[in-house]
Amino acid sequence: MIRKTRLFTPGPTPLLPAAQFAMAAADIHHRTPEFRALYSRVLAQLKDFVGTKNDVIILSSSGTGAMEASVSNLTSPGDRVLVLTAGKFGERWTALAKAFGCSVDVISKPYGQTFDLNEVKEALKLETRAVFMQASETSTGTSHDVEGVAKLLKEVNSEALLIVDAITGLGTTPLDMDAWGVDVLVGGSQKAVMIPPGLSYLAVSERAWERMEGTYNPRYYFDLRKERKNAKNGESAYTPAVALIAALGAALDYIAAQADGDLAAGRAKLVDNAQVIAKMTREACVALGFKLFSTSPSPAATAVLAPEGVDSGVIVKALKTRFGAIITNGQGEMKGQLFRIAHLGFFDFLDTMALLAALEQVAVTDLKLPNVQFGTALIPAQKVFAEAAAK
Amino acid sequence: MIRKTRLFTPGPTPLLPAAQFAMAAADIHHRTPEFRALYSRVLAQLKDFVGTKNDVIILSSSGTGAMEASVSNLTSPGDRVLVLTAGKFGERWTALAKAFGCSVDVISKPYGQTFDLNEVKEALKLETRAVFMQASETSTGTSHDVEGVAKLLKEVNSEALLIVDAITGLGTTPLDMDAWGVDVLVGGSQKAVMIPPGLSYLAVSERAWERMEGTYNPRYYFDLRKERKNAKNGESAYTPAVALIAALGAALDYIAAQADGDLAAGRAKLVDNAQVIAKMTREACVALGFKLFSTSPSPAATAVLAPEGVDSGVIVKALKTRFGAIITNGQGEMKGQLFRIAHLGFFDFLDTMALLAALEQVAVTDLKLPNVQFGTALIPAQKVFAEAAAK
Repeated sequence: MIRKTRLFTPGPTPLLPAAQFAMAAADIHHRTPEFRALYSRVLAQLKDFVGTKNDVIILSSSGTGAMEASVSNLTSPGDRVLVLTAGKFGERWTALAKAFGCSVDVISKPYGQTFDLNEVKEALKLETRAVFMQASETSTGTSHDVEGVAKLLKEVNSEALLIVDAITGLGTTPLDMDAWGVDVLVGGSQKAVMIPPGLSYLAVSERAWERMEGTYNPRYYFDLRKERKNAKNGESAYTPAVALIAALGAALDYIAAQADGDLAAGRAKLVDNAQVIAKMTREACVALGFKLFSTSPSPAATAVLAPEGVDSGVIVKALKTRFGAIITNGQGEMKGQLFRIAHLGFFDFLDTMALLAALEQVAVTDLKLPNVQFGTALIPAQKVFAEAAAK
Repeated sequence: MIRKTRLFTPGPTPLLPAAQFAMAAADIHHRTPEFRALYSRVLAQLKDFVGTKNDVIILSSSGTGAMEASVSNLTSPGDRVLVLTAGKFGERWTALAKAFGCSVDVISKPYGQTFDLNEVKEALKLETRAVFMQASETSTGTSHDVEGVAKLLKEVNSEALLIVDAITGLGTTPLDMDAWGVDVLVGGSQKAVMIPPGLSYLAVSERAWERMEGTYNPRYYFDLRKERKNAKNGESAYTPAVALIAALGAALDYIAAQADGDLAAGRAKLVDNAQVIAKMTREACVALGFKLFSTSPSPAATAVLAPEGVDSGVIVKALKTRFGAIITNGQGEMKGQLFRIAHLGFFDFLDTMALLAALEQVAVTDLKLPNVQFGTALIPAQKVFAEAAAK
């Protein structure tokens, strides 16, 4: 039978057709008025999408590039920083901070868990220059409490910058950078904004820009002040990924169009969307007898433990080979233990029911799980949607 | 929430991405070696796809153009012809035959029914020059017995040509033109071959080509002999829809690739695919308490009667506005009475379960049908698929 290949992965996520067309048509040079008009428009849209008064910078890199830019621009060798880590992406903050010579304090929680604010309070020193964390830890499908950490910082050490990897958090969880006092919010293109990988972006607070005046870690391609200066003229410092910027513009147009042109409201709708389909997925998985891996599940992606004695790779492979549905295995040490299903970006009710129907087929006919039959996963998912739709 | 627009209509059907890309890239002139190579290749592929030794002609027109070509090329004014009709497309044969001055005998059955071979036998006269019928009547979701009619013709009047509109029959039902002795098989691009509307094609038997030597109905754009002559040189008589021909080539490549390069086997797989998802849909709809409209349901599209007192347009509209899922209402006098869900072409298990989940939501939360709950439609569909997959 026909098997369409479909991504249910937490990045890349499914592409928005209008963005694909814009990308295919983007035959323009980057040092022209046409590009400057496009770039200025997309930067302004992105600001509205992030929901901030801060300047937003786009980099032609993966999200890791923007994470590096946050470290290299905002720290100097020897700076004391605090990293909150409970997964692969938390560990990336630690590795980056160490690579740039920071003196790194780490609060490390087991994979699948989140942080205790009291522990964070204890670890915060007066010398802490910056705190790095994830809004959503994609490797474990876990939400972290950015608002709580931000509040704590204001109380305990208002000089420390708060730098948040919101790569899978933006568009899936409420994030109010300006009200909460987040200094840097990092995003990526292959996530809730529905375009391919290749762009990252950062919203940067005024006090973070001021911090950069005095820091002296080496940076060149990721020099944020240079990018900010160029952006004022509608240009990027180095050759930008033009087609992706055109795609991003089209995607932001689409998100705005979902809420009468209001990008902030469009983002709120995206958040609602992710939250409803995440809940559908969680309840379906629990009904199948699967355990959720995270104690603080993220609406960006659901991490599900494979049943006792089953390698999660078997489920990932069955979904791929039998149904063309691509989900992801656990990363690193969690490989074989869990699988992850994404909800961020361009997914709808039909996508979700379709994937859950395939997962139910795998549970019934491949895994032959006890107490599972057709309808076990689909019925609770239908109920979650009906309740959400009735609101 | 996000609502992707998805076609579940019996033409246009969902587009194959590889065909979309080929279409977008088709920047070639039609009087060049490049186009001649493409056209010759696509004509040869189409022959394999139809599964015939007969020459196949492509026309830049909708399927109705190829239907007209069958009439205008194969009849002369005053010719006695027999039309089998039980729906909108059967009526189109009658209208075409009359438009070209034929003396038309009609076997007309109520919508949703098919023909009694004894009645056909009775209506066949020795003077009948041609018989026109549908393999699948799309307006009512009904399969007609082409093989039975072909057999009858051989017995009763072997001189009469059998001309079959297989626009939605090809790729959904077994059709063996050469073995059965069908003289003309008409197909369209926006159907099982997964590309947009704009092309039709006909496979034409040797004795039909011979018949054309003596017929004298007016034809110019649809002159099949002229097209056949040009096709031998890899060209079309008039400017062809180049992008659609490139798309058709890509789609036939895809269909072949499903069966190790064997297009006939690829078509057989398409037929199996349509038959499984049609059965999933039928059983789900029956479980919801809906009645099937046809006594001989076609695997191309399922026509479903709206429940007593419900306008089928309400269901069509709810699927569209709440879920972005486009199905079709009844045509003509059946508008408001039935809705139609397509299975032909680029649909898979996930598409089918997704649509049925949306239909179940409409049944439970909008129509509030008695004895219907979540799972009522989805569970039988899951069972049909599991049984088919176990074979």
